[in-house]
Amino acid sequence: MSKLGSEITLGCDLGATNLRVAAVTQGGEVLASMRRALDDRAPSVVVQALSDGVAEVLRTLGEPLEAIGGIGVGVAGQMRGRDGLVLVGPNLGWRDVPFGEMVRSKLGCPVRVVNDLSAAAWGEASVGAARGEKDVLLVFVGSGVGGGLILGGRLYEGEGGLAGEFGHIKVVTGPKGRRCGCGERGCLEAYVGGHNLRLRVLELADAGRGQGILEAAGGDPERIGGIALELAAEAGDPEANALREEVAAFLGVAIANAVTLLNPQKLILGGGVLAGMHGLRKRVESCVLEAGGKQQVAQLSILEPALGDDAGVIGAALLARTS
Amino acid sequence: MSKLGSEITLGCDLGATNLRVAAVTQGGEVLASMRRALDDRAPSVVVQALSDGVAEVLRTLGEPLEAIGGIGVGVAGQMRGRDGLVLVGPNLGWRDVPFGEMVRSKLGCPVRVVNDLSAAAWGEASVGAARGEKDVLLVFVGSGVGGGLILGGRLYEGEGGLAGEFGHIKVVTGPKGRRCGCGERGCLEAYVGGHNLRLRVLELADAGRGQGILEAAGGDPERIGGIALELAAEAGDPEANALREEVAAFLGVAIANAVTLLNPQKLILGGGVLAGMHGLRKRVESCVLEAGGKQQVAQLSILEPALGDDAGVIGAALLARTS
Repeated sequence: MSKLGSEITLGCDLGATNLRVAAVTQGGEVLASMRRALDDRAPSVVVQALSDGVAEVLRTLGEPLEAIGGIGVGVAGQMRGRDGLVLVGPNLGWRDVPFGEMVRSKLGCPVRVVNDLSAAAWGEASVGAARGEKDVLLVFVGSGVGGGLILGGRLYEGEGGLAGEFGHIKVVTGPKGRRCGCGERGCLEAYVGGHNLRLRVLELADAGRGQGILEAAGGDPERIGGIALELAAEAGDPEANALREEVAAFLGVAIANAVTLLNPQKLILGGGVLAGMHGLRKRVESCVLEAGGKQQVAQLSILEPALGDDAGVIGAALLARTS
Repeated sequence: MSKLGSEITLGCDLGATNLRVAAVTQGGEVLASMRRALDDRAPSVVVQALSDGVAEVLRTLGEPLEAIGGIGVGVAGQMRGRDGLVLVGPNLGWRDVPFGEMVRSKLGCPVRVVNDLSAAAWGEASVGAARGEKDVLLVFVGSGVGGGLILGGRLYEGEGGLAGEFGHIKVVTGPKGRRCGCGERGCLEAYVGGHNLRLRVLELADAGRGQGILEAAGGDPERIGGIALELAAEAGDPEANALREEVAAFLGVAIANAVTLLNPQKLILGGGVLAGMHGLRKRVESCVLEAGGKQQVAQLSILEPALGDDAGVIGAALLARTS
């Protein structure tokens, strides 16, 4: 890779449904990008798609791979260490996939592989909502729940690259805890992640206690989910309100405890569930402020993400500079 | 301060009951030390005692202050930023004390002021139980509950110097939470810190449900506390066992969640309560392993502190090198 390398790096974001690749400047500007839906998630197919995506972006850019300063990839999964071994990628259906090695061997150049929300956190802390801040906690509540930690101005990944696994904090202990996609019980994600939240709303409706929610879904059980829950709660349905309050409390206290422990300047709350449920978001923010350490909360700002869907590719591209 | 500075620094540890000062080598060896009980905790009296302690250690060492490479002080309190402003020192009875400024002005040289458990964590991670490890979580359960974080090989203090406030993580929410010494409700310390634990055991006894505990205390209510609780639980008393289990679960899950979030290599568990209650310690360790993320737990070792009462002075002295 050449002199231009100091100017442009590539970032890739490998989510459960989409692959994105972008060429990004040092200042975080996206010069060229592509997105492709992932139908087949077999590791070798995904690696080929990523390689094709890189080639496509380079064509758009009019530059060879050698002109690029580095490549970073954010993956929706638990990584071990810094070599890109994906231990568990629940939404990709991956277990123990040596993804970093496969990508490196396919592209023939070094690649930095990180968790997708670590990449998003780095993007937001570098050129987004928390630009230039040293201590940033990012929590995303989408289909799943995850986080990213920027501590002391650096991406913090932990001993094994697993730091920021916010969704698997325990909020209920013992055998009564809801089963989580990770195989354990009582994880935050099992109660508040979009996929599980929809199941919980459906359970309420099945138990005959979700009339207000069913009405909010226009009587169509297929449309029951977080947004119907939000609408019913706003309309004063007591069952919907109780469930939404529980979700807010689980999320809010878990985040508050991380704020008490880590004393960040900025908390970035994002993801589809919070974007679609404004009332829930407000309650979560209140819970964080109520349950967090007083001094820590006094020093905290709660922000929305600023980079949207680009946070992951931008962060991954900028992280490629730091490895 | 002179050339010798590269060899020796001074560490001070300001706890609720004792002031300790030590001259420490780069390798963590204590060359000279003093300890004095603190009767009067008025800030100006404490600063004078600290100054006297420094002078005493220098006399023992046979060196002038100018020969010392730096001074670090660990304080049992919540600090703001790095200037040594003590926001709250509950056991010292301090609020908004500009302690760092007072010490600097008294000694006439720069002083690094940190939380006492941050100092202990730095000591243990530098030359103690977790020597040379990069990601270390230290939790001490004594009269209060606190923690220290070494992340990425550096002391992590957070935006305002408040990181590691483990005792004020919320374990019970809402108005039913026990009142904590910090003024809030539902903090971990309110349930498991030695002072509150003793109150809880006494409450059990007062409610006529602590017969086994009273017997374990030799029938003397004055001797009721954590150790009587431990003895009664070991003897099979169901009330004692239930309380000990609750304490273990609160502590264990709070620590497990920090392990899931931060993915440290080493967890150092210490403090008087855990040192005196071996059964409790075992149960806490089990809870951490059960409730922590599986991958994170697989990478974790749980250790006892190695530096004993010296961890704070050694860590503070070694931190003075890094400022």
